[in-house]
Amino acid sequence: MIVIGEKINGTRKPVAKAIQERDAAFIRDLARRQFENGASYLDINAGTLPKREPEDMAWLVEHIQESVPDAILCLDSANPVALKAGIEKAAKTPMLNSLSGEKFRIDGVLPLACEFKTELIILALDDKGIPRTSEGRLAIVRNLIEMTRAGGLPDEKLFVDPLVMAISTGTGNGNISLETCRMIHEEFPRVHLTCGLSNISFGMPLRSVLNQAFIVLTIQAGMDSVIVNPEERELRAIMMAAETVLGMDRHCMNFNRAFRAGKIGPKATA
Amino acid sequence: MIVIGEKINGTRKPVAKAIQERDAAFIRDLARRQFENGASYLDINAGTLPKREPEDMAWLVEHIQESVPDAILCLDSANPVALKAGIEKAAKTPMLNSLSGEKFRIDGVLPLACEFKTELIILALDDKGIPRTSEGRLAIVRNLIEMTRAGGLPDEKLFVDPLVMAISTGTGNGNISLETCRMIHEEFPRVHLTCGLSNISFGMPLRSVLNQAFIVLTIQAGMDSVIVNPEERELRAIMMAAETVLGMDRHCMNFNRAFRAGKIGPKATA
Repeated sequence: MIVIGEKINGTRKPVAKAIQERDAAFIRDLARRQFENGASYLDINAGTLPKREPEDMAWLVEHIQESVPDAILCLDSANPVALKAGIEKAAKTPMLNSLSGEKFRIDGVLPLACEFKTELIILALDDKGIPRTSEGRLAIVRNLIEMTRAGGLPDEKLFVDPLVMAISTGTGNGNISLETCRMIHEEFPRVHLTCGLSNISFGMPLRSVLNQAFIVLTIQAGMDSVIVNPEERELRAIMMAAETVLGMDRHCMNFNRAFRAGKIGPKATA
Repeated sequence: MIVIGEKINGTRKPVAKAIQERDAAFIRDLARRQFENGASYLDINAGTLPKREPEDMAWLVEHIQESVPDAILCLDSANPVALKAGIEKAAKTPMLNSLSGEKFRIDGVLPLACEFKTELIILALDDKGIPRTSEGRLAIVRNLIEMTRAGGLPDEKLFVDPLVMAISTGTGNGNISLETCRMIHEEFPRVHLTCGLSNISFGMPLRSVLNQAFIVLTIQAGMDSVIVNPEERELRAIMMAAETVLGMDRHCMNFNRAFRAGKIGPKATA
């Protein structure tokens, strides 16, 4: 499971403050902690006004890659100028978050991804919004994959997000996302699947338990990446448990190794 | 989800001692606690020598049904004499655990189930053991359901156990059980599915996490009953969470209600 750490997001107050005050130590620590907890990708959302965003993005990229040179940075913006500023600063080819069927993203994000051969998150929505059905979401994705292929981007670089909506707003919302996963996985077997997991539990109590149940189901449906807070130890454990009971962990070696290394299970107290 | 409480089992030392010493208070308390924690069925396994078993079974039935008159008792024995003794003592028609393709169970358990129109657990094994494949397990189940139908037992009374083997002894063991569930659910839609969940994690660390991941997957595969320790609060929460994200909990009402009633989530401290 590829974990994309979600915490460097300027819409969160402490992060916004750190960006504004150029508190590099705070950002570097946030990056390091997520990476050490298994996030091989780090989402970077400056969350600032368009005018400031390119400069903020470049500053974030600079300090985060110094802190965790082995992480892949996932530049999260709808603003192509900010994405370009991040790409130019990045030592390793970053991932872009995200393309969708919205015209301004097709015009702004797609050319950058194709030019720099970046990994790319694709959202199953367009200018009309998020389709209610899995068929509608698949149609958008199919259309966008035609474009990325035409632009020379191999399917392996794509991370499709089927979009997860709150179960509290529609009893069928979980199944629509799962079905979308299965359809994409079948039609485009080399494409990765990812999602912002915690949307499923919005508006509900015991959100972490709902998230845990849902991630197990998404893994069975072909999901191989997730955008989460990597410091949630219980989520990490159940993801590995799902892979194990689904036969994706030969001889249970990953699970046993992670347990022995203290990466899952009760946290060792110092 | 129908929960069958597993704790009144004479192969467990404190239970064996209570049975031997006719410690009714111990047994009644064990019954009450399981029922209060959501087990509408209580498995009763006297676990004693064949000579003593009918008498012990009758004694257990008597005291358990006095303690929890609303529970359904699940008489767990391979000995038809003990089952008969339990049936005769039971105020409500009990469930029998279990029929399988083993000749001595076909000869001993099937006639009792058909005569008393009991609910009946069916194990997907026969005298040759547990088939390695889901097709092999389905074949045994199909054969047994022919017999229960011929004996006048409606499919609704059957709880088929696809058999869960330890993931530590075979990477494919989880998938074989899940596939067996799906096949039975499709061919016999009115039959219930149940299992002894914790077998999946035998020999592994963090068993409860593996059990939780697996129960989520079995629920999606059609499992609607489980034989567990109902006092495991985390398991109960993830079962309800799975039903919720799978769209089986209209407007998330069960989940929200269970949370407000303190049945799931952090335990209120007195």
